[in-house]
Amino acid sequence: MHNNSLLIRNVRPLGKNSADLLVRDGTIVALGTDLNAEGAAILEGAGQLLLPGLVDAHTHIDKTFWGQPWQRHQAGPRIIDKIENERRLRRELKLSAETQSANQIRQAIRMGTTHIRTHVDVDTEIGLSSIEAVLASKEHFRESMTLQLVAFPQSGLMIRPGTQALLEAAIDAGADLVGGIDPGAIDRDPAGQLDCIFDIAERKQVGIDIHLHEADQLGATSIELILERTRALGMQGQVTISHAFCLGMLPEAQLSGLIESLQALDITIMTHGPGHIAFPPIKRLYEAGVRVCAGSDGIRDAWGPYGNADMLERAMLMGFRSNYRHDDELEMILDICSFGGARVMGMADYGLEPGCSADFVLVDAETPTHAIVSRPPRSLVCKAGRIVARNGECLV
Amino acid sequence: MHNNSLLIRNVRPLGKNSADLLVRDGTIVALGTDLNAEGAAILEGAGQLLLPGLVDAHTHIDKTFWGQPWQRHQAGPRIIDKIENERRLRRELKLSAETQSANQIRQAIRMGTTHIRTHVDVDTEIGLSSIEAVLASKEHFRESMTLQLVAFPQSGLMIRPGTQALLEAAIDAGADLVGGIDPGAIDRDPAGQLDCIFDIAERKQVGIDIHLHEADQLGATSIELILERTRALGMQGQVTISHAFCLGMLPEAQLSGLIESLQALDITIMTHGPGHIAFPPIKRLYEAGVRVCAGSDGIRDAWGPYGNADMLERAMLMGFRSNYRHDDELEMILDICSFGGARVMGMADYGLEPGCSADFVLVDAETPTHAIVSRPPRSLVCKAGRIVARNGECLV
Repeated sequence: MHNNSLLIRNVRPLGKNSADLLVRDGTIVALGTDLNAEGAAILEGAGQLLLPGLVDAHTHIDKTFWGQPWQRHQAGPRIIDKIENERRLRRELKLSAETQSANQIRQAIRMGTTHIRTHVDVDTEIGLSSIEAVLASKEHFRESMTLQLVAFPQSGLMIRPGTQALLEAAIDAGADLVGGIDPGAIDRDPAGQLDCIFDIAERKQVGIDIHLHEADQLGATSIELILERTRALGMQGQVTISHAFCLGMLPEAQLSGLIESLQALDITIMTHGPGHIAFPPIKRLYEAGVRVCAGSDGIRDAWGPYGNADMLERAMLMGFRSNYRHDDELEMILDICSFGGARVMGMADYGLEPGCSADFVLVDAETPTHAIVSRPPRSLVCKAGRIVARNGECLV
Repeated sequence: MHNNSLLIRNVRPLGKNSADLLVRDGTIVALGTDLNAEGAAILEGAGQLLLPGLVDAHTHIDKTFWGQPWQRHQAGPRIIDKIENERRLRRELKLSAETQSANQIRQAIRMGTTHIRTHVDVDTEIGLSSIEAVLASKEHFRESMTLQLVAFPQSGLMIRPGTQALLEAAIDAGADLVGGIDPGAIDRDPAGQLDCIFDIAERKQVGIDIHLHEADQLGATSIELILERTRALGMQGQVTISHAFCLGMLPEAQLSGLIESLQALDITIMTHGPGHIAFPPIKRLYEAGVRVCAGSDGIRDAWGPYGNADMLERAMLMGFRSNYRHDDELEMILDICSFGGARVMGMADYGLEPGCSADFVLVDAETPTHAIVSRPPRSLVCKAGRIVARNGECLV
């Protein structure tokens, strides 16, 4: 698709009144009626719902089995079992992280996702090979997907000497953020791991996105340590805590204190609406002004068979798990799966307003909630003015 | 489609080795190779997965909004709020239970469901009108869907004098089972409600299917009362407890005692894998020999916007909620969503063996778990030898 002028007639932005959408040189230039669209290619929107491009703010595209023959799942119950099972499978299957990340990116494009933040494994066994593979995919899809990489010490940091230097090298190679994981439960040295990654973040001038599966008081203590370091280093707006299951497990007084600090320090909470474990109270965080974003987490990988990179399905699961049955609650979830993710990724030109990058999706649904619960194939997906998917098929 | 001979070449029953399937006069006559299929119409299965027809063993087809313009959802948080909101909407929207049940049946057919047990509201305001409407749909779809009706006192029984007589009249009119609801929480007279419905069941010689949302000890006490009455009346194999959330909330010693009794009295537990509340430990019940079945519960109705009558999606949600990540666990869930439901509905001729009714689904998936997590459009749905859906489209 050429990058000049495109008029899409009769679309309903976020379910509001019908309008025409004019895109020029990759940017939304108007959304209204009686537009001057001389010379533009014309598409009929047929009254479909117009949504901003969906944002998958937490996934693991280097590790999906998507597009491979079916793997039977057999990992043990603990997180450490899954980490070890994954490292074993990685050795045995010898999948290419470049091929696999490309497979997931194409699937995400089909589903209307225009922005992905992905955590990419860095460890002393594979070194930077996955980072390099995902950077190659980032380059390959540069016109059809905005991709942010977090250098992710999946197998631990303090317990695996050499990992710190690899994380720094990953940033130097092009990763956008530094990651962390369960500083208490995996590394058994919360202050040590957090000092290490905040130090890298400060020296390399990058943001932080930390996996925190830790339950109850162990998780709360890690959050306190993250708050302290964010405050001390002036890293407001630069820190994300992913999962933060403990926020769904704490006594009220403790929770409300943490929420106040998360808001004050502009720390983002990422949730994927897990199936079986407590998770953050999304609406309460959102209404308290804490930034919230959402992601697929791993899809069809060594951790489990679920997931399809569809952020509308993710929105359904998050609402279903939270017992949100009202339309306004599911509209909040959609905001988290779009604007929430774009904010944490620092996308200044995101949205459906004139001047925004032309990243959007058309869906045959009446309302945002209808789209979330029915999840029809995406009729049209547009990235920076390019049509990247149509009628459920990826064109890239 | 004619009802005589049909050969489907190259299908993989439940993911096993490829075979050909021969159907004659609505019955599976052979599943193997080198079949004598002279004169049969031939379809190419192309190596797709063959599943028995899916069984939705608990839904509310009289009340769905499916096929209507989108309704914004606004009910209050308690069960009684939702019951009252629903009765208000029913008066305001004046939807036809016959049209709505037909809409859901068609959607279920598209999704590969061949059997439905539905709970149909009976109360002093609408009387038997919904029962009559769903009976009309049952007649209308008699060649494409097996439908069982439970006469369901949604608004309470003891608290609404006149309901008992209506339940009896519903059975006389053609309902297959008598229902109940939260004898403690809604009626505040557990022994009274249960005596009433067991009395109807005994006199009318029908089975029982009771909604039990009651939590903790209130629910456990209701289960004890159900066990006592099942034993006293010799109703083994005739009683289903739907939801039974309390089985996910009890101390170990109490739970194991209840499981033993449920197994001994052959009482079936139905779960839909609710989003936000504890629910029965499916695998534990299954492995203890307690019969388990599954259903959609209400889809897109006054209770909430979720659901699409797809039992493969229901299987995904049940597995996701239970943290089942292994293929054998998801194969168990699929068994519950097919054979489990067929058993509770008393279908003697259900399955993929020669002699069974030709009720089956073809799906483009490698394995049962792959089908559950990917949920492609159903390529072919066959009911008693008739092709009722193809490529995701209902033909009825």
